[in-house]
Amino acid sequence: MKIARFRAGRRVAFGVVMDDEVVEIRGSIYTRFRMTDTRIPLSEVVLLPPTEPSMIWGPGLNFADHLNFAASVLGGEAREAPKHPEPWHKGRNSLTGPGDPIIIPKDSSGEVHYEGEAVAVIGKQCRRVTPAQARRYILGYTCGNDVSERAWQGEDWTFWRAKGSDTFAPVGPWIETDIDPQHLEMVVRLNGIEVARSSTKDMLFTFSEIVSYISQQVTLHPGDLVFSGASGAPCPMKPGDSVEVEIPGIGILTNPVAAEFDSAAA
Amino acid sequence: MKIARFRAGRRVAFGVVMDDEVVEIRGSIYTRFRMTDTRIPLSEVVLLPPTEPSMIWGPGLNFADHLNFAASVLGGEAREAPKHPEPWHKGRNSLTGPGDPIIIPKDSSGEVHYEGEAVAVIGKQCRRVTPAQARRYILGYTCGNDVSERAWQGEDWTFWRAKGSDTFAPVGPWIETDIDPQHLEMVVRLNGIEVARSSTKDMLFTFSEIVSYISQQVTLHPGDLVFSGASGAPCPMKPGDSVEVEIPGIGILTNPVAAEFDSAAA
Repeated sequence: MKIARFRAGRRVAFGVVMDDEVVEIRGSIYTRFRMTDTRIPLSEVVLLPPTEPSMIWGPGLNFADHLNFAASVLGGEAREAPKHPEPWHKGRNSLTGPGDPIIIPKDSSGEVHYEGEAVAVIGKQCRRVTPAQARRYILGYTCGNDVSERAWQGEDWTFWRAKGSDTFAPVGPWIETDIDPQHLEMVVRLNGIEVARSSTKDMLFTFSEIVSYISQQVTLHPGDLVFSGASGAPCPMKPGDSVEVEIPGIGILTNPVAAEFDSAAA
Repeated sequence: MKIARFRAGRRVAFGVVMDDEVVEIRGSIYTRFRMTDTRIPLSEVVLLPPTEPSMIWGPGLNFADHLNFAASVLGGEAREAPKHPEPWHKGRNSLTGPGDPIIIPKDSSGEVHYEGEAVAVIGKQCRRVTPAQARRYILGYTCGNDVSERAWQGEDWTFWRAKGSDTFAPVGPWIETDIDPQHLEMVVRLNGIEVARSSTKDMLFTFSEIVSYISQQVTLHPGDLVFSGASGAPCPMKPGDSVEVEIPGIGILTNPVAAEFDSAAA
């Protein structure tokens, strides 16, 4: 089942996507809901980030073939593969919906890269769950783009702006609840041309292992998002580009890339 | 003016603290409110974290006398003082109210330290504000305890659990709106004995400078919290302790310290 969050007119609602329509639901996607009689063509709604997370997590170098690339960004020699997940926070402010622009900050060096990833959506509050239990606390999976400014990633002590600037976390288009999370193909296209292809079967730590690990010290809440980590050596995006993250079986997350207006404060 | 968030019976409300009473308000503390006729003795309410932040920020080594201590935790030589703020995220999950226990995780090494700090409370959404403008976007100041597990701080790639484990961000008891933020004394007492004393006048970057800096890439929202950073070389706390962070002119944030129960998952 595909669960979307959307705006129709001035109303924000959740719905189940069926072909080219969304069937509005009543209730909570995290506990119990039923379909209503309201069916709206997808072309007439604005898809929103599929949840309102309290936290967004990345796992830190979760693909072996990203280790050398990370060394080239962060300096020093290639790190050894982590022995356990190395969670980090992607800023809540960076959350962006399908179709919304990724904005290149005006003071960026220009090296702003896509990272096409799969994203687990927490469905139930959990703390100290085992990897075997974790699966039951995940509602489903969606597509994400872990947008990364490489100069800041190399210079700063944390990823606060390298991966946490406003608009740097596009997520969507919806949550697929019935899919094998460790056999997802992740395809990135820049202006229609395929630039990356990887699979969640190559994740060093599975979604269940990452969720379990984080939950040892942190209570995870419904709607929280856990990125898969990225593979390979991504490339920069520039204003005017269009970037797609497709996961067959889930859908396509498309975002235009724009320059920041030189607007006045606030 | 002192603004508190509290629970009275089953109701959560905001109020203005006057002597030993809280006067309930109607409206929003971020825009406009008025006092009501409801006055409740402070002894009859449960004080809550004074806001519901979307993000909690720390500035990274913001006191010169914390540099050597940080080197002893993180390994290597003492870092040079940062040339600009080095923001990091304190997990939203770690937020804890006055009087609520700081829970030592059962898998901690035992080196869980207090860090008594002042905390700025964002009052209005802001982006790309200058330091001179930033002051207008800060509603007031409160006390915070940047609880830190030193083994994890040294081992992990990020502070996700070292400073972001559940209960590691006690904040309160309320927001003082009329106070000079760069002349605050911060006093920590462990079981009634003073163990630290510092002043916000020694912050390498002022609250206005930190807020301005973060706002260059991140939209800050009403209720978001920005810690001052800590001074000196803190000490460990153990279950059964009581820790107080007092800022004269604001108030006292008191939290008991407890061991984690070995409970089943979720």
